Amino acid sequence: MDQRLSLITLGVDDLERARGFYEALGWSGQEVQETVFFQTGGIAVVLWGRGKLAADCGLPERPAGGFDGIALAHNVRSNDEVDELVATAERAGAAVTRAPARTFYGGYAGIFLDPDGHAWEIAHNPGFTLTGDGSLVLPDLGNS
Amino acid sequence: MDQRLSLITLGVDDLERARGFYEALGWSGQEVQETVFFQTGGIAVVLWGRGKLAADCGLPERPAGGFDGIALAHNVRSNDEVDELVATAERAGAAVTRAPARTFYGGYAGIFLDPDGHAWEIAHNPGFTLTGDGSLVLPDLGNS
Repeated sequence: MDQRLSLITLGVDDLERARGFYEALGWSGQEVQETVFFQTGGIAVVLWGRGKLAADCGLPERPAGGFDGIALAHNVRSNDEVDELVATAERAGAAVTRAPARTFYGGYAGIFLDPDGHAWEIAHNPGFTLTGDGSLVLPDLGNS
Repeated sequence: MDQRLSLITLGVDDLERARGFYEALGWSGQEVQETVFFQTGGIAVVLWGRGKLAADCGLPERPAGGFDGIALAHNVRSNDEVDELVATAERAGAAVTRAPARTFYGGYAGIFLDPDGHAWEIAHNPGFTLTGDGSLVLPDLGNS
């Protein structure tokens, strides 16, 4: 299995509300068959009905609310960008569960939940390179 | 907010078990401070203790088991690759919740859960381009 990911699908209770939230953050998506696709670098973020996604996974539905077990992160180039993005998300309807603050790893980050409870960390981590196109490149962490 | 993602962190109950699973699929990670980082194209997949991740998100812990609300996908170039990868994952300890089969969108896919219950779809979708480096490029879906 090549070391890569192709898509991340977020289960949503109201597709238009979810799409509107991400568009209020500046994203632009395409909708087909009650599914919204966002091209995000070399992968896609997809919004799809939560019950349909659970059924597609062969799993019983579990209501939204509480911890997904997964967190997404969007890294930026400065602490100011963290503050701005978290404020933008809050205006768009996100619940901020951790206000922007310094982190244990020497960065600066805040966390919000999208309207379906999916957690996003907005982080400035000086230890991780962001290339011109926004790709994240891990350093040699001095270990294996 | 630029239309991109930087990291996806999967909450895990046993870091070495989780790392061993992804390494059995052929991935190679770096571990630092009880966290494992995998470079996956222009993003990183991270394994971290489930309780620590929940606390970091400012959310109460919710036990693993059942639907995360999020599904990950790894797209490949042929139906045979889908069969091979799902079989490899099953040998490595994954629970296959949907055996590989044709999909409603004209592709071929199967779904497994990693040892912490995170759902992965392995898919061949002839409608989505995979470039030489494995990046996924959405087509014009003829809609907005």
